[in-house]
Amino acid sequence: MSEPVDPVALTAALVRCPSVTPEEGGALVLLERLLSDAGFECARVDRGGVSNLFARWGLRGANRSFGFNGHTDVVPVGDAAAWTHDPFGAVVVDGWMYGRGTTDMKSGVAAFAAAAVDFVRETPPDGAVILTITGDEEGASVDGTVALLDWMAQHGERMTHCLVGEPTCPNEMGEMMKIGRRGSMTAHISATGVQGHSAYPHRAKNPMTALVSLLARLEDKPLDAGSDHFDASTLAITTIDCGNPATNVIPARGTATVNIRFNDLHSGASLSRWLQDHAQAVAGETGVRLDLKLQISGESFLTPPGEFSALVAKAVATETGRVPVASTSGGTSDARFVKDHCPVVEFGLVGRTMHQVDERVEVAQIHQLKTIYTRILRDYFA
Amino acid sequence: MSEPVDPVALTAALVRCPSVTPEEGGALVLLERLLSDAGFECARVDRGGVSNLFARWGLRGANRSFGFNGHTDVVPVGDAAAWTHDPFGAVVVDGWMYGRGTTDMKSGVAAFAAAAVDFVRETPPDGAVILTITGDEEGASVDGTVALLDWMAQHGERMTHCLVGEPTCPNEMGEMMKIGRRGSMTAHISATGVQGHSAYPHRAKNPMTALVSLLARLEDKPLDAGSDHFDASTLAITTIDCGNPATNVIPARGTATVNIRFNDLHSGASLSRWLQDHAQAVAGETGVRLDLKLQISGESFLTPPGEFSALVAKAVATETGRVPVASTSGGTSDARFVKDHCPVVEFGLVGRTMHQVDERVEVAQIHQLKTIYTRILRDYFA
Ligand SMILES: [Zn+2]
Ligand SMILES: [Zn+2]
Repeated sequence: MSEPVDPVALTAALVRCPSVTPEEGGALVLLERLLSDAGFECARVDRGGVSNLFARWGLRGANRSFGFNGHTDVVPVGDAAAWTHDPFGAVVVDGWMYGRGTTDMKSGVAAFAAAAVDFVRETPPDGAVILTITGDEEGASVDGTVALLDWMAQHGERMTHCLVGEPTCPNEMGEMMKIGRRGSMTAHISATGVQGHSAYPHRAKNPMTALVSLLARLEDKPLDAGSDHFDASTLAITTIDCGNPATNVIPARGTATVNIRFNDLHSGASLSRWLQDHAQAVAGETGVRLDLKLQISGESFLTPPGEFSALVAKAVATETGRVPVASTSGGTSDARFVKDHCPVVEFGLVGRTMHQVDERVEVAQIHQLKTIYTRILRDYFA
Repeated sequence: MSEPVDPVALTAALVRCPSVTPEEGGALVLLERLLSDAGFECARVDRGGVSNLFARWGLRGANRSFGFNGHTDVVPVGDAAAWTHDPFGAVVVDGWMYGRGTTDMKSGVAAFAAAAVDFVRETPPDGAVILTITGDEEGASVDGTVALLDWMAQHGERMTHCLVGEPTCPNEMGEMMKIGRRGSMTAHISATGVQGHSAYPHRAKNPMTALVSLLARLEDKPLDAGSDHFDASTLAITTIDCGNPATNVIPARGTATVNIRFNDLHSGASLSRWLQDHAQAVAGETGVRLDLKLQISGESFLTPPGEFSALVAKAVATETGRVPVASTSGGTSDARFVKDHCPVVEFGLVGRTMHQVDERVEVAQIHQLKTIYTRILRDYFA
């Protein structure tokens, strides 16, 4: 009988692959070998210069098919000289492993890969275990998990439930899981008026007046007060720009950018209409042309609390002694794509140092995470 | 008996002096010679690198002492290649003289200098005629007419009334005189908040939100609806700037500039209080620090319609057939300084091309302007 897979050694091996997005860096090759050897059917799903890995143990189209989703690409190291240890060295000091991707999220991928391999060998389930691992989560996110899900649809592959292994705990292991995320949308607003002398504003059409009027309307009332499982939606003006140095001149053009994080009371479409309506009203009042470029980077989504989230929460509580809060806070993750495929929940370790210099993970947490993932698999197929 | 002074030749001679502010360019030297020769007591009043000329015919402290005020400095030529004729050439084509300063306001200075010289020689008045000519009207305006008025106060020199010879007619010779001007003030607003992630605006303090809120308050209601002799006060946002390229980041700092043109219902002090009050309220609501740098470039002023303005209007109407409107419109002029010394009215020719490429004056208007100024002198001392 084989030895169990050491998730710490696997994390270290993955960290040593310099897979700065969108580089594969050897990480998926390494995982494919491990999973193939363990009897997983593997397929490389590469699209648009990005590498992704699909792996399934068990039969295609099984009634119960548990999925894990994660990414091996990492953000750039930033100021390399500022790191205490080689960002691709996976150096362990005092129980902490240092390196880019140690928390976000090579440890998560290592933990679920190790859990999956050991689980199917020791207690082969009545169903399938599927791993979707992408190299394009930190980048544009258009040829990553989306490409995997497209490929799965074409090939009759299906997960019945999916766990995304992103770090979800703000400070303590086990304190938080995610059952949804707010959506995110960015509006780039361009105002074009008519230049003039500042002594005669009525002869000009001031784009800055139109922008102020529009932005004041948008900020006038909160978008909502939150919903059952979501915080309130938020709107933030991230910049306003004009660059006119002449105090006696009304400029012809100005721009502004607004970022909206929205809960399940809104959609990208409803907010687009809301923005366009206000812009049209202000344009009518001021005579200034207002052009909106709207980018919806993700709709809000929710896996309503139920059997699946309860199963994950129970496994976390049993292993850590903490009942995880079911949160929808935070930025976006690939769960926003998976939710169109099947119910999705996110649970992973403490993400405090992600994207920072000296990103690091407590080695003990990697072991603990594998144990949690193993218990989830066991309970799921029980 | 001497020949009368030709105001067209004098304008041309002045245009050929390249007196781009703050350069003297020979213009004041030329005028000083002309006026000295005609019996004017002259004094160069130079301050802070700027040249100015004081000239008086008649006794110091005379009961009636008529003043003319003007400037010989000009704005830069701008795109020199775009000019049809040498901007310092004073070329005359089809009855028009081309050159920088032909309308603003070497023709005005030439017309009143010619009128004054001929008048005191032909009909020596019972009183004094004073000319104050500055080389710092288009520049900072701190060492120009202000320096002349300071010097006059120190030397017991006094004008009982003053006419500023700036171009005042929008389109037709004689249609407008100015009996006051709105004041002008600029507020540079700097907002300093706390940077943060745009998904969590409540953890940040957004300077752009504070600026929008402040500017929306300032633009909420018109400052007034105008007064007896003034148009409504106006407020114009001339720029808002931040320069934050990251749509997921709330910036720490932003700036805005506002220009206010105000009538006699306000003062620099009252508007400063108004701005500070609103800024304080918004700072209290948002937690964003708002720093205001306020520049008052001139208070509003009015020479109420009366004997003096009626005298000027009558002279204009007699010579042009048009009764000039007594207006307070337009930007600032040195009349804003003279008004603290004595009643001041402005009248000059059509200023349509001032500060532009191919600035030009109709030669006939220079003659007409000298005739008007001569009639004003005659009527004043009658
Ligand atoms: Zn991640
Ligand atoms: Zn001028």
